[in-house]
This record gives sequence, C-alpha cells and structure tokens, in this order.
Amino acid sequence: MNSPRLPMVESAHYPAGVPATTPYLAVDVARVRRNLGRAAERAAASGVSLRPHAKTHKSPELAWLQLQAGAVGVTVATIGEAEVFARHRVDDILIAYPLWVDRRAADRLRDLMTRARVIVGTDSVPGAAALGRFLGHTPLEVLVEVDSGHHRTGCPPEDAGEIAAAAHRAGVDVRGAFTFPGHSYSPDALRTAAEDERRALAVAADSLRAAGIEPRVVSGGSTPSLEASLDDPGPLTELRPGVYAVGDAQQWELGTMGPEELALTCRTTVVSNAGGRAVVDAGSKILGADRAPYSSGFGRVPEREEARIVMLSEHHAVIDWAGTPPPPGTVIDIVPNHACNAVNLVDTLYVDHAGDVREWPVAARGHNS
Amino acid sequence: MNSPRLPMVESAHYPAGVPATTPYLAVDVARVRRNLGRAAERAAASGVSLRPHAKTHKSPELAWLQLQAGAVGVTVATIGEAEVFARHRVDDILIAYPLWVDRRAADRLRDLMTRARVIVGTDSVPGAAALGRFLGHTPLEVLVEVDSGHHRTGCPPEDAGEIAAAAHRAGVDVRGAFTFPGHSYSPDALRTAAEDERRALAVAADSLRAAGIEPRVVSGGSTPSLEASLDDPGPLTELRPGVYAVGDAQQWELGTMGPEELALTCRTTVVSNAGGRAVVDAGSKILGADRAPYSSGFGRVPEREEARIVMLSEHHAVIDWAGTPPPPGTVIDIVPNHACNAVNLVDTLYVDHAGDVREWPVAARGHNS
Repeated sequence: MNSPRLPMVESAHYPAGVPATTPYLAVDVARVRRNLGRAAERAAASGVSLRPHAKTHKSPELAWLQLQAGAVGVTVATIGEAEVFARHRVDDILIAYPLWVDRRAADRLRDLMTRARVIVGTDSVPGAAALGRFLGHTPLEVLVEVDSGHHRTGCPPEDAGEIAAAAHRAGVDVRGAFTFPGHSYSPDALRTAAEDERRALAVAADSLRAAGIEPRVVSGGSTPSLEASLDDPGPLTELRPGVYAVGDAQQWELGTMGPEELALTCRTTVVSNAGGRAVVDAGSKILGADRAPYSSGFGRVPEREEARIVMLSEHHAVIDWAGTPPPPGTVIDIVPNHACNAVNLVDTLYVDHAGDVREWPVAARGHNS
Repeated sequence: MNSPRLPMVESAHYPAGVPATTPYLAVDVARVRRNLGRAAERAAASGVSLRPHAKTHKSPELAWLQLQAGAVGVTVATIGEAEVFARHRVDDILIAYPLWVDRRAADRLRDLMTRARVIVGTDSVPGAAALGRFLGHTPLEVLVEVDSGHHRTGCPPEDAGEIAAAAHRAGVDVRGAFTFPGHSYSPDALRTAAEDERRALAVAADSLRAAGIEPRVVSGGSTPSLEASLDDPGPLTELRPGVYAVGDAQQWELGTMGPEELALTCRTTVVSNAGGRAVVDAGSKILGADRAPYSSGFGRVPEREEARIVMLSEHHAVIDWAGTPPPPGTVIDIVPNHACNAVNLVDTLYVDHAGDVREWPVAARGHNS
C-alpha cells in the first residue's frame, strides 16, 4: 500500500484528483473500512467468524484490511487465486469450490500447502475419491459442499455424510460443510435464503455426525443474506460474504447496501450527447455485462439517482439522464452492477486515501484456473 | 507466433493437446484463416476495403493474419488499443470512437502519429472543436460518426457536413464518415440494418459534399450485416467487421455463421453433476456475462447442440445436457456468446496450429482508455 502519488490530469474539465484517463475503477477506502468494521462487529457479536470471499476484489491490499479487521482467513474460487493470495502472505485459504483434482491440480495444491492452510470443497463421491487418490494423507482439509436452494453445485444436505465418509476412507481430512445461498440475489429472498442456508447446514451437520465426523466448520454466506444470517446464525460457524466490502449496484437495488456505503465506482467521461442522452466512455469491458432481472439498468449513477443506463456496448454506456444531460467532457461516476466482474476487468484500482490516490494491483485478476 | 510447445496434461481424463488447466480459451487457426480468406475474397469482389475491428481479438498475431489477407489497416475502440497495435508494427489505425480529447489524450495521439496513420471519430461540433484545439494542423485524420439506426453515438446523417465544416475550420483533416449498424444484432434485422447503413452513409456523404468536403472514406460494417453490405455496398468504401474472424454463439444463433466456422472456444472441465446436470469450471469470468435477448443461454456447446447453458456464475456454468450429462473430469468446449468480451478476460489464447499449441498474448486486453 506504499504507492506513489499519481500525476493529475490538467484539463479544466476534470475534477482534481483524477489519476488516469477515464474509464478507470476508483475505490473509496474510508467506506471500505467502515463496511469491514461494521461486518466484523456484527460477526463478533454473533459469535461467527468471517472468511471474506476475495474473488470480489482480487486485491491483496484489500484482503489485508479484512484480516486486520478480524477475518480468520480468505475465501477464493480457484487454485490460481489461492496462489496469488498465498504469495501475498495470506496463510489461511478456503477454495470454496468442488475442485476436480488431477495430477497438475494436486501438484499445485501440494505446493500451496507449504505456504498456507488450505481447505477445498467437494460435492460428490467421485470428487472425494479423486482428492484422496492425489492428496490423501496430506494436511489438506475438505468441506463438503451442500445445495441450500441455489441449485448450482453442492450435494443434497442429507448426502453430506456419505461423501464425507468416502473422503475419510480415502485419507482426506473432512472438517465440515459449506453452502452458498446464492438464491439470496432476489429482492424477495434475502431472509428466506438465510433460512434455507441454516436448515441445509443443520441437516448436513447431522449427516456428518451420523457418519462419525464432527463438523468443526459450518460455513455459509452471501452479501444479500449476511444481515439475516448474523441475526440468527443457527449452526453457522463462519460466513463468507464478498461484495459487502465495496458494494455494487446490485446490492443497492436489492436494498442490502445504501448508496453511502458503495465504495467502488467507475469514473467515466461523457463523450457524446447523441440522441439527447449522455454517452460515456465506460462499457461492458470495464463495468461488466451483468444485468440481473431486478436491475434497473447496466449500473447506477449515484449523483443522479433518476438516471438509467439503458444501453451498454463494450466502450459505451448510454444514459437516460432524466433531464438535460451533462455535456461532453464531464466526468461522472457509475457504480457497476456486479463488483466482482468489474474488478476482474482491470489491472489496477485507484484508491482514494483522504485525497491521496494510490494504486492497488488487482493481483488475482484473470486467475480462472 | 514463435511460441514454445506447451506441456501436456497427463490425466487420462484429458484429451491429448490440452495445454493448461481449464478453463482457457482455444483458437482454431485453420478456421480463422478460412474466415478471413472468405471475407477478403468477397470484399475484393465488391470493391470494398476491409479494416477489421481488432477489439474482438486484441491480438497482434491475429491482426497480422488479417493484414496478410489484404486488410488495409485495423480498427480499434480506444487510444490504448491503438498504442498496442502500433507497437506491434500495425501502421494504419482507425479509432472508431467519438473521442473527447483533452491534453493527455492529445499527447498520446501525437505520439501515436509518429508510428502510424491515425484516424479518429467525432460526432459533435464541440468534439470537433476540441480535436482542433489540441490537434489541429497535425496529420490526424477524422471521420464524422453518424447514427444509422443503432442509436448509440453518431450525429444524424444530415448533420455530418456541419460537424465536418466545424472540424475543417479548426484545422482538422476530415476524410469522410463512418457508422456502426449495431442494430444488425437481431435475427430479423440483418438486411434492414445494412439498408439503413447504406442510406445513412449516402446522406452523410452528400452532407459532407454540400459542406465542400469530398468524402474519401465511407465506412460501415458489423459482422451480422457483413454479407448484406457486401452484396450491395452502395456508398461504402470500407467495412469494419470484428467477430467474423473467430465467430461466437451470438453469430451462430443469429444465423450469420455456422458451427463449423466458429474458431474460439472455452475449454472447460465438468466438476459436478449436481442436480443431474453438467456443472463446468467456466463462468462469467472467462465466458463473459453477455446474454442477448435472442440467445438460448450463456453460450453454446458444439458437441451437444441440444444442451443449454441455463445458469452462469463467476466460475460455474450449469448445463442442461438434454440427456445423461458427462461425468466430472470430462473436458468439453463451450462457444462464448460474445467473443470480444470473452477474449478481454484472458491474457493468453491457446492456438491450435495443426496439433501444435502456441500461445498468443491478448496484448490489448484491458486497454480501456
């Protein structure tokens, strides 16, 4: 976090402090610290550990802010992301993914274990057998992934014990279960998804116990369901929110974060008023193309809540401004719909530290495997 | 293109020639060459130049294949992309974008002009004035962007002369007009968009002539409208297709390219059969999150045309296989919906040259400004 001050743009059209040609992603670190602090306090009060998902930011600097705020480790989605964070001295890493392990993946995990505690997921007997074949009797820890209603990966919760037993027989150290209640990404499902998560994890924990394995880790969490899970953690020992650190337009529109909590914006320049609208130089190649069914557009403009981003190309966003649009040359901020995919499009985050602009590398960008 | 042979994966689950841990993007260069050759032949027969849009591939190797096939230069969307291609000895570059130029952008363009012919767009009198203020009386060439029905950027075609005259007064060398008929991205609009393009460019050319400026470049093109524009180019002197080189699921589903022409695939591994489906390790962080209204899902599986990608997360795609899904460990190919955004997510394309796998850097990835 010891980055040089950046040269400022000279044009009168640019506000002071614009460190680069637009479009670029900016982070308000004071807001990040507030978001992290609030979640840490709530988790401590609920007796639940936080293991934030670092796929959201892919930034070692941000991961370290999370660890300093009390997180027990980080969550990632791929071996490649784990390697990056381990190189940056993060030494407790959950790869919350049902890895299909072959020799190459096993070699990488073995190397990773020399630098960090490593926990991975599995959701099937064949997957558990592959883990045992290549990595049995190593320090690798495993959690069984269960489906709590998102219907992506994860076994039925009542099957967790069978998979855990297969893993155990193959020499794998099963520590518990995890789920991702991703169906929380719907305005009506924030609390019901948390209920589903509690119920599924309770069933999974019982299933593990029936198979003779005491679940020491019972892990859940998503940003939309975070508050509800903290209100009533049930069997949860750990939560893995990701977006909560920086927020995005999805969280704003789901009602889980307010505009004053959103810490990640895309700074962009109006390049055209064609058609009486504001067309800016940010498109899907920096905002991401995500658009959830409940989204009002392809991102949001905090300074103009009535504005709607009605059209997105790779390097254009067309904004119905709901009034006279700002003229070409005006710099505005857009909050991306989905922080995780926007961050993964850039190599650098421009971070405002009380007026100083620092560069944070998106060190784990593109580490998809 | 002088890359080393890559180490092969040893697992019996992987087919020979898999150069890396999945997911990764693979290119079939024989198909690319056929796609380029066919377009070049058709363009030559129609008397139209090709200036392919390099934002699709961001690869100097692929740009050079296009130039070797007769392209007059390349098109890009940003100054940053132009800088990358100029560094790779591409010396004729159109930035098909209504740039809003400030001092920093002007300095970069000035530097670029020492290495390449540089053409940029403008779509307003203020934009033209800014170009003149910072870059008047330089070798910079300018095309007026007109709106032919996509309703993104571009002035009304009949206003082209007024903008060109303003640019000319400001010391800018106006060479003609361009448009992007992006409304061709609809199954019913392939031919009508080409008609709109011809009509708009004819009006723009007349408007330039009325302002005393002879249009030497009249530029259009998109992949969906390419065939129709080549059938009847009207006033067009140049076409700028991008996706035609590699294809994608959008082109397949629009009916403009057949599966045997698609040269870009995401190689991915089945990691789970949860819910009786195939869940693979490719998600929006390598396929992109694009999903057009006419798309059948989040990409297509050529080996199983009935399969539908029904759900996409950052590192998971859930495939309804329409039959018994392949077991975990199976490697399959997915054609991304939108090639341009998928390529922009990786640093390397793995290119099959008759069995040899070479690495092509995605050198212009992330150059958004």
